[in-house]
Amino acid sequence: MIDFYRKSFLNYLDSQNLTKSKSNLYEPINYLLNLEGKRFRPILTLISADCFGGKIKDSLPAALSVELFHNFTLMHDDIMDSAPLRRGKATVHEKWNVNAAILSGDAMLIKSYESLQYYKKELHILLFELLNKTALEVCEGQQLDINFETNEKVNLEDYIRMIKLKTAVLIACSLKMGAITARASKIDSQLIYDFGIIIGLAFQIKDDFLDIYGDLKSFGKKIGGDIIENKKTILFHNAYMNTSSENKAILKKYFSNSYEGNIETKIKTVKQIYTDSGAKSDTKNLIKDYLEQAKRKVNEISIQDKKKKILIDFVDNYISF
Amino acid sequence: MIDFYRKSFLNYLDSQNLTKSKSNLYEPINYLLNLEGKRFRPILTLISADCFGGKIKDSLPAALSVELFHNFTLMHDDIMDSAPLRRGKATVHEKWNVNAAILSGDAMLIKSYESLQYYKKELHILLFELLNKTALEVCEGQQLDINFETNEKVNLEDYIRMIKLKTAVLIACSLKMGAITARASKIDSQLIYDFGIIIGLAFQIKDDFLDIYGDLKSFGKKIGGDIIENKKTILFHNAYMNTSSENKAILKKYFSNSYEGNIETKIKTVKQIYTDSGAKSDTKNLIKDYLEQAKRKVNEISIQDKKKKILIDFVDNYISF
Repeated sequence: MIDFYRKSFLNYLDSQNLTKSKSNLYEPINYLLNLEGKRFRPILTLISADCFGGKIKDSLPAALSVELFHNFTLMHDDIMDSAPLRRGKATVHEKWNVNAAILSGDAMLIKSYESLQYYKKELHILLFELLNKTALEVCEGQQLDINFETNEKVNLEDYIRMIKLKTAVLIACSLKMGAITARASKIDSQLIYDFGIIIGLAFQIKDDFLDIYGDLKSFGKKIGGDIIENKKTILFHNAYMNTSSENKAILKKYFSNSYEGNIETKIKTVKQIYTDSGAKSDTKNLIKDYLEQAKRKVNEISIQDKKKKILIDFVDNYISF
Repeated sequence: MIDFYRKSFLNYLDSQNLTKSKSNLYEPINYLLNLEGKRFRPILTLISADCFGGKIKDSLPAALSVELFHNFTLMHDDIMDSAPLRRGKATVHEKWNVNAAILSGDAMLIKSYESLQYYKKELHILLFELLNKTALEVCEGQQLDINFETNEKVNLEDYIRMIKLKTAVLIACSLKMGAITARASKIDSQLIYDFGIIIGLAFQIKDDFLDIYGDLKSFGKKIGGDIIENKKTILFHNAYMNTSSENKAILKKYFSNSYEGNIETKIKTVKQIYTDSGAKSDTKNLIKDYLEQAKRKVNEISIQDKKKKILIDFVDNYISF
């Protein structure tokens, strides 16, 4: 089912002049956009439009807008994180240079707005205001993420707030945009937005979980990457709250920038503490809770049961374990 | 007269929550916005609105939008140019760091869109489409500027095209936005846009001229800065076209990245070639031509004579020598 939405989006993406331009400014944009991505955000826009009886065709420009916005954040975040790889390929600032990644990222953000030119009148205003709000929140989330790297006092609640801004609001925005293009009611648009926040949180926490407990092949990134980079994800915060003061000291030592010992030992020890402290099972349960919550939210939306099933299937197939 | 517009804008800027926010994301934005700038672009928006009988109040959000957009480009361009100073103070990436300048610049671009939320319906669409078009053109201009640094074959025409995109279109956009907020006719909106392109070109070329022939006190930047940085401005292209092959070789030598000789000798020699080749007088004449052209354009616009005078006074006081 999801393949239908993915194909619709990819055809549309390919039909845009965007992907045919050869200038230095647009080359990095095309490069990043054409790396194999999951396309979750634009797919959610199309699904949502479909659920509310809208035409796929009329939701495609909004879907492109969120995909362009998402890729803009990747291009700039990768500079900030000095990330060498994205989806297994060289990042834009590695393949070209930092200046190219800054400038093409800027153009991509502008393009994500431009895509909303398709919509007129009230529809346009609603989408435009939603994109502005979401875009600023995502910047605030990225700022919190940066702040947290040097802030010792971050707790679980702060972490959830950060990933809500950095990840969940754009997923919620993708769904709400679909609802708006299908002229769903305000109440339903808000409900599907709330559903998006919940699955967005679950999505990010699952990603944090798989970074430690996944397997290389299906996860596609090095296992333990977050531990190597001293990223205090939900597992760290949960473990830190529930472990002995001895283990707290070990975690602190390993997550300090001055640690220069063996990386594999670090991953193994930290993983053990995560598991023994209950952080592993707590995190798994939290994801399950979110998914149950998401399904209950779906049932509040005024759409046909067969449409509800599409949303629930999405959760089961792409967010659940 | 211009002081009235400037004060109106500065009061509005100060009234925005933007300038009161203390978070890490907004601090660099406030810092840059509050450095003493000439505020030419927002002032032109207000002047234009006033010329077409619009209310100043209703053009302020558009004026803020162009000022935010302009400052976003400064923040990111300064990273790309590794510029240490902006308006005599440390640039954002120097005072904070590159990541802060990337992220706060992004937020500033989003804020420039957000400012257009004030407008509804058709007015909003017109302003939104104009901002999208202009914003992409400015990115393309910056890309050309970067390309030119390593491209030997740039000529005068290419250079004019680059500064048109990098500088003139935003000045033209500022004026057209004012016209749109005042509900000017399509023809008049286009005429004031064309006027903006002409004064924008003159403005940039005057800046290039003063970089060599200005005096430190009134120019506010080191004289010869463009020569030091090997910037091939209009003076270079004009001189290169009209000088002996011996002098061409000297210019080539001085503008190669491998030149490591005395800086003051370089400035003095290059300046002499610019003067002797006629580039100095040609450039001065070109600016004069543009200003005459600009005044003729003003006379085509359907506004009262006293309003035409405001535009012509602006040219005489701020763009002429």
